[in-house]
Amino acid sequence: MSVLPTQINLEVRDYECDLQGIVNNAVYLNYLEHARHKQLQAIGLDFAGLHDGGLDLVVTRSEVDYLAPLKSGDQFRVESRVSLLGRVRFEFLQQILRADGLPIVKARIVGTCLVKNSRPGIPAPICKLFDAGV
Amino acid sequence: MSVLPTQINLEVRDYECDLQGIVNNAVYLNYLEHARHKQLQAIGLDFAGLHDGGLDLVVTRSEVDYLAPLKSGDQFRVESRVSLLGRVRFEFLQQILRADGLPIVKARIVGTCLVKNSRPGIPAPICKLFDAGV
Amino acid sequence: MSVLPTQINLEVRDYECDLQGIVNNAVYLNYLEHARHKQLQAIGLDFAGLHDGGLDLVVTRSEVDYLAPLKSGDQFRVESRVSLLGRVRFEFLQQILRADGLPIVKARIVGTCLVKNSRPGIPAPICKLFDAGV
Amino acid sequence: MSVLPTQINLEVRDYECDLQGIVNNAVYLNYLEHARHKQLQAIGLDFAGLHDGGLDLVVTRSEVDYLAPLKSGDQFRVESRVSLLGRVRFEFLQQILRADGLPIVKARIVGTCLVKNSRPGIPAPICKLFDAGV
Repeated sequence: MSVLPTQINLEVRDYECDLQGIVNNAVYLNYLEHARHKQLQAIGLDFAGLHDGGLDLVVTRSEVDYLAPLKSGDQFRVESRVSLLGRVRFEFLQQILRADGLPIVKARIVGTCLVKNSRPGIPAPICKLFDAGV
Repeated sequence: MSVLPTQINLEVRDYECDLQGIVNNAVYLNYLEHARHKQLQAIGLDFAGLHDGGLDLVVTRSEVDYLAPLKSGDQFRVESRVSLLGRVRFEFLQQILRADGLPIVKARIVGTCLVKNSRPGIPAPICKLFDAGV
Repeated sequence: MSVLPTQINLEVRDYECDLQGIVNNAVYLNYLEHARHKQLQAIGLDFAGLHDGGLDLVVTRSEVDYLAPLKSGDQFRVESRVSLLGRVRFEFLQQILRADGLPIVKARIVGTCLVKNSRPGIPAPICKLFDAGV
Repeated sequence: MSVLPTQINLEVRDYECDLQGIVNNAVYLNYLEHARHKQLQAIGLDFAGLHDGGLDLVVTRSEVDYLAPLKSGDQFRVESRVSLLGRVRFEFLQQILRADGLPIVKARIVGTCLVKNSRPGIPAPICKLFDAGV
């Protein structure tokens, strides 16, 4: 029911820092989303392509612990692990670590699928990908 | 220990919508932050001014439930209620409602103060504002 | 060939400021876009609705002079004037002024229409709106 | 008076796309800024560090031609070349190219230095870096 974790490496861009000189709290949601979409890509799911096909992956709940701030020039990685949560939801456990290993953010993101003209849930072909543990 | 709730009225800007045609999940964090800073302003606290004086208000945890999406042109309001959480943290309970009353987002944001060269906590003068129930 | 100018009133949000404590240069493009979409709305054009109908309004060139920076808490207005530029383009002349009248940004934005399966240009019904000087 | 050009490689992140399914026009300004800061870094200038030291590099004019849009998943590179423009300004000539070589954006960005308690201009030590053609 779970797939291999993925990891992406990124670098803080100065425009992502706010007037406190640290990465703004909303920007971590951007980082986490980008990492999730790369994770989905790794199991054969294309976020934009799915939308064009009438299937939208949406976040229904986010829980984020901000442990330490990233600053201008910091290198960091985002680790993501996704698994099914019952029949209609999936759950990402994610963390952001500075290049030296310092924990920055720990997050739990719950999502589901919205299919045009249909009830929320995860279409069978997508479930299969998870089952396969690809 | 708590202060009067505040409410701000906003409108979706098209650049805040992503390729799904709905407001991106990270943008709600922007809305919520702006509402918190207006709430702080209402009790006499200026986020940028505090930073210039060496005191940073930072988010330590966010919990956000996404109930329904906002779209291009939607009018909405953000309601915020803040209270102290023990001696070193404060808690915002916030919700975003579309103009017609539809609940969009429900959030709990926990924060603290970082004072230059000092331990985390909430300086006495700021606590006083909360006690006063201004 | 030109329509009545419009004006919108906005306020700086703290997350729009970067580590220099001023509104980041890219954010003014957001302000200008939002003002253009309100200007289009005023002449009966809905940016998102047009996209759903297969017609995309896109920017082809922007020229922006940054005269003075906006800061946390600043109130400002964006003034926009739009006119046709030949047969296939339109031109927005825009300026951002702080509430006390200080000029912040002066901009010229050129755009065109992309119609699905068609050449760039401005469809006749849209041209008419401009001609009418609504 | 000019320094070696630099190049950075980036990838579109889905949250950078707007409801038209293409990268929003303001986001290219983010890409361009990030590339400029990497270019400055390459000649020994740290944007955030300079700010902390009381010297702010600011944009005074931007001219951007949008030639073709980037979409979800696109890989691209930003090329930047910087040179002095008279005694008080510098000029970046930048372009964004999709991985297959398709020109996306062509830009000219003019900037200057603001030194605390001083007139606009470029401090001598910074001029030297340019003269040296590092």
